[in-house]
Amino acid sequence: MYPESIKNLIESFKFLPGIGEKTAERLAFSILDLEEEQVSLFSDSLLAVKEKIHPCPICNTFTDADICFVCSDSSRDTSTLCVVEDTKSVFLFEKLGMFQGMYHVLDGLISPLDGINPEDIGLDKLIDRIKKENFKEVIFAFRPSIEGETTSLYIKRVLDGMGVVVTRLASGVPMGADIEYVDSLTLERALNDRKEIE
Amino acid sequence: MYPESIKNLIESFKFLPGIGEKTAERLAFSILDLEEEQVSLFSDSLLAVKEKIHPCPICNTFTDADICFVCSDSSRDTSTLCVVEDTKSVFLFEKLGMFQGMYHVLDGLISPLDGINPEDIGLDKLIDRIKKENFKEVIFAFRPSIEGETTSLYIKRVLDGMGVVVTRLASGVPMGADIEYVDSLTLERALNDRKEIE
Repeated sequence: MYPESIKNLIESFKFLPGIGEKTAERLAFSILDLEEEQVSLFSDSLLAVKEKIHPCPICNTFTDADICFVCSDSSRDTSTLCVVEDTKSVFLFEKLGMFQGMYHVLDGLISPLDGINPEDIGLDKLIDRIKKENFKEVIFAFRPSIEGETTSLYIKRVLDGMGVVVTRLASGVPMGADIEYVDSLTLERALNDRKEIE
Repeated sequence: MYPESIKNLIESFKFLPGIGEKTAERLAFSILDLEEEQVSLFSDSLLAVKEKIHPCPICNTFTDADICFVCSDSSRDTSTLCVVEDTKSVFLFEKLGMFQGMYHVLDGLISPLDGINPEDIGLDKLIDRIKKENFKEVIFAFRPSIEGETTSLYIKRVLDGMGVVVTRLASGVPMGADIEYVDSLTLERALNDRKEIE
């Protein structure tokens, strides 16, 4: 029923996470309202992303250069390593602009129930890197979850005795949240992680 | 901060209706997880849609052929014309498969408050067509709204005395809806449009 090219475009939008039939149709038709230059930018950058972007050989952050913008920046603090579960987290922290150390991107988190074991998320490369480089502190910045916890504990155990301080992000009541509506796990963690007021 | 190609892709996704910064970032990164063939299909079909798709010269339905699939289908009932506000409506009705007549796609609806007047939505072409072809009935299938109402009344006035039956879609309580939660305008319309049980 749809012309061939519209059908293909609808199928393409459905490749994307969270986009079903209806949304894909709406988006495909909206392309007809765009300027020609916008559509060619869109089309070109799809190919460019797939062709040029690859993980940084040192830290796995997606980059189009030989070495990513963090690893190639000589002004960074090379004594602190922030371990994250995906590239997006790196850009999130960089937008904040408060962390000056280095990053290491894992390929997700350990999740035995989903069949994702330590060897599946690139831990060897991380451990090798920590052994070789001279980090004083390794920070785990995973989402608070069973998987985050499991991954943290696993790496912590491997690093035991290597003289590296291992930390994780504080977890607790988010700023502005109403304590009444915070789930009990978060509240429990906030209580355990309580901080002395100085 | 982002590599050039990712930045361009994020910008491209933001061209689309209802997609903001966060979603655009998520979608752009998701492209890296697609197969190469999926990305080239996506990229190619964007260009193809923009290059090949144009309004049917008779009814304005988007098509990649000289004449759209409805106008070129000799088995259709040429005595009934369904007037819609965009191409998507045509495909919606065709999916239903219950309407066998012809279509005419307007370029939106009359909306004086937004500066959209009768001459802006291609009414001349519609009126010309109705004068030339031998329709017995013209059905307005606009979304129930002030704009839909205004457009229907305007066309109805122009067609007065031409011997064409002019109808609109029934509007009322949607199937399965809880009467308690239906807005008062819809309920009023449902009452006015009430139908005798035969």
